[in-house]
This record gives sequence, structure tokens and C-alpha cells, in this order.
Amino acid sequence: MPHAIDLNADLGESYGAWRMGDDEAMFALVSSANVACGFHAGDPLTMLRSARLSAEHDVVLGAHPGYRDRAGFGRRELAVSAAELAAEVAYQVGALVAMARSAGTRVRYVKAHGALYHRLGADASAASAVADALAGFDEGLVVLGAPGGELERAAASAGLRYAREAFIDRGYLADGTLVPRHEPGAVVHDPVAAADRALELVETGGLAADDGARIELAPDSLCLHGDTPGSVDLARAVRAALDAAGHAVRPFA
Amino acid sequence: MPHAIDLNADLGESYGAWRMGDDEAMFALVSSANVACGFHAGDPLTMLRSARLSAEHDVVLGAHPGYRDRAGFGRRELAVSAAELAAEVAYQVGALVAMARSAGTRVRYVKAHGALYHRLGADASAASAVADALAGFDEGLVVLGAPGGELERAAASAGLRYAREAFIDRGYLADGTLVPRHEPGAVVHDPVAAADRALELVETGGLAADDGARIELAPDSLCLHGDTPGSVDLARAVRAALDAAGHAVRPFA
Amino acid sequence: MPHAIDLNADLGESYGAWRMGDDEAMFALVSSANVACGFHAGDPLTMLRSARLSAEHDVVLGAHPGYRDRAGFGRRELAVSAAELAAEVAYQVGALVAMARSAGTRVRYVKAHGALYHRLGADASAASAVADALAGFDEGLVVLGAPGGELERAAASAGLRYAREAFIDRGYLADGTLVPRHEPGAVVHDPVAAADRALELVETGGLAADDGARIELAPDSLCLHGDTPGSVDLARAVRAALDAAGHAVRPFA
Amino acid sequence: MPHAIDLNADLGESYGAWRMGDDEAMFALVSSANVACGFHAGDPLTMLRSARLSAEHDVVLGAHPGYRDRAGFGRRELAVSAAELAAEVAYQVGALVAMARSAGTRVRYVKAHGALYHRLGADASAASAVADALAGFDEGLVVLGAPGGELERAAASAGLRYAREAFIDRGYLADGTLVPRHEPGAVVHDPVAAADRALELVETGGLAADDGARIELAPDSLCLHGDTPGSVDLARAVRAALDAAGHAVRPFA
Repeated sequence: MPHAIDLNADLGESYGAWRMGDDEAMFALVSSANVACGFHAGDPLTMLRSARLSAEHDVVLGAHPGYRDRAGFGRRELAVSAAELAAEVAYQVGALVAMARSAGTRVRYVKAHGALYHRLGADASAASAVADALAGFDEGLVVLGAPGGELERAAASAGLRYAREAFIDRGYLADGTLVPRHEPGAVVHDPVAAADRALELVETGGLAADDGARIELAPDSLCLHGDTPGSVDLARAVRAALDAAGHAVRPFA
Repeated sequence: MPHAIDLNADLGESYGAWRMGDDEAMFALVSSANVACGFHAGDPLTMLRSARLSAEHDVVLGAHPGYRDRAGFGRRELAVSAAELAAEVAYQVGALVAMARSAGTRVRYVKAHGALYHRLGADASAASAVADALAGFDEGLVVLGAPGGELERAAASAGLRYAREAFIDRGYLADGTLVPRHEPGAVVHDPVAAADRALELVETGGLAADDGARIELAPDSLCLHGDTPGSVDLARAVRAALDAAGHAVRPFA
Repeated sequence: MPHAIDLNADLGESYGAWRMGDDEAMFALVSSANVACGFHAGDPLTMLRSARLSAEHDVVLGAHPGYRDRAGFGRRELAVSAAELAAEVAYQVGALVAMARSAGTRVRYVKAHGALYHRLGADASAASAVADALAGFDEGLVVLGAPGGELERAAASAGLRYAREAFIDRGYLADGTLVPRHEPGAVVHDPVAAADRALELVETGGLAADDGARIELAPDSLCLHGDTPGSVDLARAVRAALDAAGHAVRPFA
Repeated sequence: MPHAIDLNADLGESYGAWRMGDDEAMFALVSSANVACGFHAGDPLTMLRSARLSAEHDVVLGAHPGYRDRAGFGRRELAVSAAELAAEVAYQVGALVAMARSAGTRVRYVKAHGALYHRLGADASAASAVADALAGFDEGLVVLGAPGGELERAAASAGLRYAREAFIDRGYLADGTLVPRHEPGAVVHDPVAAADRALELVETGGLAADDGARIELAPDSLCLHGDTPGSVDLARAVRAALDAAGHAVRPFA
């Protein structure tokens, strides 16, 4: 039985003279693009280009705010207060909205980046502040994130729709969290294995954790990574497998 | 015969732990606030506070974008391309719009800062790119700037309303440009003299240049500065003189 | 019996157009200046001015490196790796050395700032990486910090001299750590009380914690803060009390 | 008759998560490395790695300071005052010196980057301020730059040795300046042509300008670029041609 699923990836992560990832290739493969907003990566011109690519490829545009830590690419925990975080996230989303209008499209959802993604899943106070700020800015925004954390609860309280994602290329522990990056099985590099995992997630709603136990994720979207060598090959293999199996790749938002 | 005039000032120029100006005092005196947007000054939390002060004091909120040069406070010419400049200005305005929504208000106008202000008055290509980007973002935005330069022409071409400002505390040359800062007569420090100039501008639409020749400025707004010692005293003197003469201080936008 | 004691303060914390503290006044009161190095505060020109003030006032010049977090003034914990931290601290010290040479003086010691100060007292791995990097750069550098933490141990291992400081204007808990900023008794604002504490520290080597128990600190230096309103008054009162009691204010380095 | 010539390239231009160029390959081909110092490109860890690569490959280490404009990669003219520029250059050189010491090597020369390179060749006041600051920091530093501009004169006045470079992969006008980047003949992409130009420069001291007229450059060093696709191939071709012709690739410093 065919299913519909969204494919999302972090795009628009170049900065000034520095390139990251192959956005041209990735925009042709995904249905949703998480676009960096100038704090941990991206800049106004890169954001405008991403918004235009999004419109050209009929890809849904999402804001991908991160910590104000460009030197660390937003991957390092930074003890920003909840109130400042809420303002920083709204700032980044508003800036991308301006780029989207210039490109004739709009921002439909928000997915946090890196260390901020993990913090919002675990820190109730920060998650509430951010969800409230997003709802105050545009109550039609969807929040994309991990299943079952503080951000999902905060989005519900704020009246925002929440979409759940699963990672095609990251191993899971039995409790539904990710295998830490420095441990074996943390990252799936093989395109064939990734494609198999994508099919299993779409067709069964879950997959096997690293200890073999089955976990349920019920994803609305599958996350691909766009910033590593080989990520385009992996994305192509996933997309081809979904297409061949008759599943529709379709935006969640 | 009483007139109506707008008073504008650059506000929200603090950054992180660093304070600049006395925003609390100034918001009570002006009718329009040019709020820095995080590139040359300001940051998300400062912008949010400024938007809230604007709402509380019934002051019209304007975006005050500048060059991406925090170290130079946006006062140094920086050879950014017109296309990148347009994206940078739209980014800054969009970010302030998000802060305004959080504060229950909106951004009505845009005034460029420092070196960017001067460039947009003289560089037709940059002025067009910026005006077009603003019109693409929100065609209801008003552009505030000097009388008669490239930005005024570009705003008209883009279908945007343009408002002209005059400087209360800066001397003018006979050609309508400002006396350079390092020359005698560049800056008016005396509150009484500033108040007299404000009255003359409001009642006659012009004033005397440094050589005594009269220049016509027909301002929609008078600009006060908020970042120097004594600026609050000067602003109070101007406001008091306008009130005493029966002129209404009223937003141009 | 007269003693000799050092007075240190964080100075050179202005940034671009933003002023912080009254450096002119403070350089006349202290014997050691912790000068910000451009990461959390300061910039090349401010550093050069601080180095010149240090030379003029015969004040010993110290580097005051912090996290690369200007937006947070280095006060927020940031999960930088130990290796990157070591490089960042060496970078900042090297930069100040260049400014010192231009001003005809030299950098004698290093004191970490804000969140980095606290981390180096508690994180053995980061403390070792930083101490080793400093020793590799200049084995004559002294490290200034809190008594008895990881940085003191790491400095000893790296062969660097370590100097201990006590805070005149911060309350202590019985375990020798500071009363958290949001609790009562965290900060001493009264110049008279501060002067009394300074005398007690100099004459007895310790003082009373918040619960009345006496703690021994045996300080080589007393730290004053230079960035708050009233800090100059407090510093003047401390200096006057030390002078009046016949104690010599003399650099530890 | 065999000659000795230096080959220099701009290296260490990565920043945080962003890679630029193939430093591993380039360090094996050059005799002098111009290493970015954290303002327009580079960061402390990248600088430390570059200093270590320099030591491993027996390549002479040079500082490559640029404008404080990371977003523009230092390629945009920025109206910094001469005094601030001097402090900024000294800051960057001092920071690299610290990294060099950690890596067991030292900084021998300074070459400015991008827009700053061009400004120092043309702006006598800025060139003097920078040369004086460098001489004040370390009178043994060599300055590397274009032949015959203001920086050469300023270095001589400051008592610093000056080395002249020629560009292998850029076309020259008859007046000895470069063909602007957007014009035909601006950039040499063909490795064979580049190798021929390198041989001509080494063996004759000059080459043909775009109008066919011969210009004399008498270079002490030939500049390769390391940041473009194909730059490693071009560098390999040049190096192979010089080796095959019996010329020694040897540091100028």
C-alpha cells in the first residue's frame, strides 16, 4: 500500500565565500527545506537564493534557526536565557520571511538546528518561550522536531501544529534517542542501507534500535543530511527507493 | 499658524552588555523611532524591548538597517554589492517585523543608518535595489531620508512613499548637504539654538546654511540624535519649544 | 603591620562605538589591569589604548581572555572543546602581546573572564589544555585565578606561577565559592563595607562567609569590578582605606 | 642558468565548519604560506593547524591579515582609519605568533589580504601606519607585496625588508597592475599556460602584459592561489615545471 512521506534536509548553510553542501542537487530531491537564517550559518544572499530554489523546485520552505554561534556552527550548547532565545528565534524566522517574500514564496514551518534542537527537546522553559514566540509571530507555522519531547508539548500548548521527524542516517537507541556520534552505529553511510531504513520507516512507522528492539516513531517527515560528502548519493538512493515502491514524497506542511 | 511635524531619533542602539543612549527618555519625546536591526547595532532582545517601548509610548516604529559592520557601528563605507545590500536590508526589516508582532505593533517605515544612509542618497544602483526589495516585501512601507537624492527617486520608481527629514543639530551647506563633522558649525550642541532651528524649520520649511543663504528643505520629519551626551536635554528643549508654540508633534507615517 | 597587596580590575571592555566602565579613573587606582582581548569584549584599538594607559600609570598588564561570545559578553557557558579553547586563549594572549609591544610594555599574566573563569576552575581537561598552551607560549606568564581549583593545579603541572585572588565586592559561601548573583548578599555595593572587607582580607588573609564561618583565602590580589555604576567610588574607597592603613598596593606579578 | 624562487599561497582560509581549499596538498607545493589570522578568514584552531603544517613541511610561515569583514572575506573595501588598521594588523600578527610558538615555529613575514592588499599599495597614510606598527612589533619581519607601491615605500621608511611578488595566474596591464577580474584575460586557468608564465617570470624577471608590451616585475616570490577549484592542479604544474627546469623553490624570507 503506497504511503505519502516528507523528505527534509538542512540547506542554505553556505556563508559568505564558504560553500557547504550541494544545494542545487538537494533541492531537487527533498520536499521540505530547512534553511539556515544567518546565526549559525547562512546569510541574507544565501537565504534569498535558497528561497528562490525552494520556489523553483516547489519545495516547502522552513526556517532553521540556531544558536548565535557561527564559529561553532550552532553545534555547541550555549547557555542563552529562554527569553533571549525566544527573541533570537523570532528574529531569524522574520528575516527568512522577508527573503521568502522577495522570492514569491512563504515560510511554512520551523525546525531548530544542532544544539538548539536538542535543548528544545529537553528544556521545558526554553521550549515554551520559543513556541509562544512562534505562535505570536504566525499561528499558522508548523513546528518540526523529534517525537515526544518538550518542544512537542510546548507547541501543543501554544496552539501550533507539530510534525515529527525520523533520521534515515542515524542509529537509534532503544529509548528513541540517537546513538551518540562517536559510538559505532551512530551514522549510516551506506546508501542501500539508508534506502532500506527509509522504506521501513514509511511502511511500518518504526525501525530497529541498535539493540534490535523495535521502536515506533510514526514520522511525518524523514530527515536527510545535506552537508557531508556522500549526502547527495544517499539522498538519491532514498528518493529512488521511495519512488520505485510507489510512495509519494510530499510536504508535511 | 500651528503646524504638525514628526520628530524621529535613532534608538535601540545598545548591544548585548553595552548600553547606548537613554531610550526610556527618548521614547517619551519622539513620534517616530528608528530602531537598529542587529547589523550595525541592536540585537534581538534590544529590538523586542524597543518595539515594546514603541507600543507603550504610541511611537511609530521604523526599521533602521545599516551595514553589516558592528565593529564600525555602520559608520564606515563598505563596498557591498547592490544585490547583497538589498538582501541585507530586507533581512533586517523582516527581523524587526517579527519583533514588532511580538510586541503587538508593526513596522511602518525604513530609514537607513550611517554610511548606508549616505550611500543610498548618492548611489542610484544601490538605491534602486534597496527600494525594490522594500517594495517587494511590503508596499505600504514609507522610506525616510534626505530630500532630493537617489533614494527619493528610487522610492518613487518602486511605488513607495518617501518622507523627507531635516537635521536639527547639524549645520547645512548652501547645497543642502551637511557640514562635514570635523568642520566648525557641523554640530549644534546648544539646546536653545536647536529649539530655534526646529521652530524655523517647522514654520518656514527651511533655514540658513553656514554661509547665510537660505535653503528649502520642506521636511516631513525632524531628526534628533539619541546617542550622545546631552542629546536628551536637546530633545527636551526642542519638544518643549514645539509644544509651547502650539505645533503638533505627530508621526509622518 | 603593613602588608603589600595587589588590586586588579577588568578593564578595556569597550567595543567599537560602545563604552563600558571608566578606564581612565580605574587605571589610576589599580596595580594590575585585566584587559579584554577582543573575543567577549575589547577590540584592537581599545586594547592598544589600554596597553598605553597601563604603561602610563605603571600598572601591570594582564590578558583577560574569554569565550568567543561577544553577544553574551563571555558570561554564558559555551561548550567549546578543550583543544579549541587552548588555541583561543593563546590567540587572545598573542594579540594583546602585540598591542603591549606597540605601547612599550608587556603582558605579565593571564586571568580568564566570566564563564571561562568558572569553567577553568572546575574542568580539569580544559584547565590543563589552557595552562599547557600558555606555558608553550611564554613560561614566564603568571596565571591569576580563584584559590584551589583545577586551574591552580594545571598551572603548577605546566610550570607556571599561580596567583590567588579574592573578591572585595562579592559574598562568599562557607565552601569558598561565591554567593550566586541572584541571592541576597551576593554583591557588596557599599564602599565603606567594601573597604572594610579589603582591610580584613589584607590583614588576616580571610573573611567571614555568609553564614559567619571564617574562610581562609590568602589572596595575592584583590579583585575590583570596573564595569558597574559606582565601581569607581568603591575602588576609590578601597584604595583610600589601604593607603590610610599603610598597606602598599603593589603588583603581584 | 638555474634560479631560486619562492612560491607563496594564501592558506588556512577555512572557518569553523566551513572548509576552503586543499591545505594539505598546497603545503607540500609552496615554500611560503600566507596564513589567514581570524579577521577575514581562519580561526584559532585553523591557524594552529596551519602553523603545524608549516613546521612539518618546512614551509616559511607568514601572517595574512585582512579587513575585519568575514562576511565579505576581506575582499570589499572598508573605510577603516589608518590608526585602527595599524592596530588590527598588529593584533592579527600577534595572534598568529602565538599559534606559531605552540607549533614550534615562527612568523617571518606579513602579506595583506584582498582589499587591504590593494589599499596598502595605494594609500600612503594607511601603508605608513601599518608598516610602523609591524616594525614596532618585530623589526625582523619581512613585508611581502606588489612591486613599487606605497607599502614598499612605507616598509623602507620603517626599516623593514620588502619582498616583491608576481601573480602566476593573473593577467597584467601594461602599467603593471592586474587585469580587473571581470575582464577577459584576468585569470589564467590553464596549468600549462601558468607553468610557462612561471618559467618566464623566473628566467626573465618579467612577462608580457595584455597588450603584448613587456613589463618588468623582478619578483622575489610567485603567488599561487589555493582557494579555487583547479588551484592544486595549477600549483602542481608550476612546481613540476620549475623543478624540471632546475630552478630551486626556496623561501624568500
